[in-house]
Amino acid sequence: MHTSPLAARADKLVGSVIDSSTSLLAAQKHDIVRFAMGAPADETVPTEEFRDIASKVFTDRSFTYGATEGEPVLLKQLLGYLATTSEPTREERVTITAGGMQGLDIAFKMYVDPGDLVIVESPTYTNGSATALSYGADLLEAPMDKNGLIVEALPDLVAAAGRTPKAIYTIPNFQNPSGTTLSQARREQLVELAHQWNAVIIDDDPYGLLRFSGEDIPGFQQISPEDPLIFSVRTFSKILAPGLRVGWVDADPSVRQLVIHSKQAMDTCTNVPNQHIVAEFIRRGGLDDHLAGLRLEYHARKVAMLDSIGRHLGGRVATTNPDGGFFLWLTLLGEDAATSTQALFETALAEGVAFIPGPALSASGKFDDALRLCFASTTPGRTEEGIVRLTRALDRAR
Amino acid sequence: MHTSPLAARADKLVGSVIDSSTSLLAAQKHDIVRFAMGAPADETVPTEEFRDIASKVFTDRSFTYGATEGEPVLLKQLLGYLATTSEPTREERVTITAGGMQGLDIAFKMYVDPGDLVIVESPTYTNGSATALSYGADLLEAPMDKNGLIVEALPDLVAAAGRTPKAIYTIPNFQNPSGTTLSQARREQLVELAHQWNAVIIDDDPYGLLRFSGEDIPGFQQISPEDPLIFSVRTFSKILAPGLRVGWVDADPSVRQLVIHSKQAMDTCTNVPNQHIVAEFIRRGGLDDHLAGLRLEYHARKVAMLDSIGRHLGGRVATTNPDGGFFLWLTLLGEDAATSTQALFETALAEGVAFIPGPALSASGKFDDALRLCFASTTPGRTEEGIVRLTRALDRAR
Repeated sequence: MHTSPLAARADKLVGSVIDSSTSLLAAQKHDIVRFAMGAPADETVPTEEFRDIASKVFTDRSFTYGATEGEPVLLKQLLGYLATTSEPTREERVTITAGGMQGLDIAFKMYVDPGDLVIVESPTYTNGSATALSYGADLLEAPMDKNGLIVEALPDLVAAAGRTPKAIYTIPNFQNPSGTTLSQARREQLVELAHQWNAVIIDDDPYGLLRFSGEDIPGFQQISPEDPLIFSVRTFSKILAPGLRVGWVDADPSVRQLVIHSKQAMDTCTNVPNQHIVAEFIRRGGLDDHLAGLRLEYHARKVAMLDSIGRHLGGRVATTNPDGGFFLWLTLLGEDAATSTQALFETALAEGVAFIPGPALSASGKFDDALRLCFASTTPGRTEEGIVRLTRALDRAR
Repeated sequence: MHTSPLAARADKLVGSVIDSSTSLLAAQKHDIVRFAMGAPADETVPTEEFRDIASKVFTDRSFTYGATEGEPVLLKQLLGYLATTSEPTREERVTITAGGMQGLDIAFKMYVDPGDLVIVESPTYTNGSATALSYGADLLEAPMDKNGLIVEALPDLVAAAGRTPKAIYTIPNFQNPSGTTLSQARREQLVELAHQWNAVIIDDDPYGLLRFSGEDIPGFQQISPEDPLIFSVRTFSKILAPGLRVGWVDADPSVRQLVIHSKQAMDTCTNVPNQHIVAEFIRRGGLDDHLAGLRLEYHARKVAMLDSIGRHLGGRVATTNPDGGFFLWLTLLGEDAATSTQALFETALAEGVAFIPGPALSASGKFDDALRLCFASTTPGRTEEGIVRLTRALDRAR
């Protein structure tokens, strides 16, 4: 029995990341410093409050099928909360999803058919590009610099590709994996290009509410309000807890029905009890304080990681310096640049530290001299230990 | 911006069902007898126990990312439970999914590429065939009788189609929507044909544990153990609670990695807290009693519905008489056969009763003289009232 060649294309790419996490699980007995997964720190999750909420708000209606577009109580609380942010929206635009990943699955399913060109950042979030591949996308990997995707390079790349893209997949804030943020000028330019090409911008922004330094930059929805070419994917995974699998899509009302129907044929509806937990958490008014706490904590953790890197690897590596989010990008310099980060992964695991090798974050396997570190999950003390171990691994690999 | 033609094909079909449920939601103020949705009766959901479990077993680990293949604690409890049933299995075969619907999404994503032929039962579960369509399947609707899919008709249908199918989508037990069960002889024949065609059998069995009368019939996994051409989709939605969105796939170990990777690029992992709830519910030993209770209750409800139909619609309709599950199929006879059940839907809603019209359960819109009734969700008293209303609607439509 031959499985789908489209599924197999995605398989190879997802495999490059998940095999790392499988190794991690296998290594769970050991004391691994985990810079690999992009998960919020366990200690930031309001578990006690979630338990309390569960014991109070779960009713029979929490366990039956919910509306595919989302539980009314969550839609109400979410819209109310977003009205206090720079991204207010309205019900006709919003669909609750099983985390941000399902928002991406819906987007690529809706906009991509086999052979369609999709622009992705290079490096990018692997599951995002894998999903595009699974619907038959031809990926056009576009380079980045410290201001994010180099938008001014896109017209030449597209001309060389010989056809215009159907979609542009971008993570504008504190990008996964690079940690860079797309500048305002480039955002505006990207919206122009999208209109020129009639391509949808898949605006994946899990980290936007986690800015801990620098100035806010207007989002695509602010730059071009009510634009049918902007499809925004959001999630509670990074700002609350990923195990909930609750996120949302904010898109033009003209496509909402298709969003809902696509989701209906994926998983019927998002799990209901966790929607009730999130709704009640917002209703109690705790989200702003929670976010403020996360920003302080993640800022401190980023600073700690950069300090540790400076102390132990100064001169041997270059890193980005993100203003928010979870990740920084580390590039090996000088003699170390000859070390394959993919090969380094096993050595590092043996030393007791995990990261994502650069090639797992590019569909064509670029960036063998780079790796992604998550600074959000580990305390400064653990981070220091992890960087010491990473240094030992690099020394051994040299 | 043009959305994908593949997505649009599925859209139309899903829309036919979901628009009914949207009407239902809009009508929620009224006192509607709900025979439409296939949801377990609210009163059968062990809400109190779920609350108790949530307050006890939720830890920080309940809210972070879980393994894509499923939480170890749930895999352990599930395998232990299945070992006591006619479908024992092992870990290398099992992946936890977001309900049965995601199992189908994974199956069609794995096995179907644009233009591939997929055999579906006619009528069938719409979201299943919609998902096949969304991956570009050409559907071959195959007729059914009281013993389920007419397997002996398939070779001619396939010959007429001019190519062999890539997949055969079947709901062998108490089929949705017909309520019929595939006979053992036909199951065996279907396995033979699948091998002849090298086609995968997508064995969707949400109701198998809900047999309340008649003799057990061996499942595909019993008929052909360790067969890579059998891909089994299972769920807790009908036997415990659908809002949890927890199900599983039981498939050949050779494809498990692809199952996991496909799921990874759909929603990263199944929501974790509900996996912990289900695991603990099984660990406490309550599932067998719960199932026994459901069987008794659903049997009584089916009998009550058939009684009500006999009293009020005797001679005007024919129905199936299922040995388990949730649904029966009602066909209009005589003069009533001229009534379109799609048109009847609005009249019935005005009378205060809801069902799924036949054409919403066939990709080509067949069965305008038939409809699906869920007997599981309503008490006998409500069912009587609902059938009275349905009779009034039919009288008005005549």
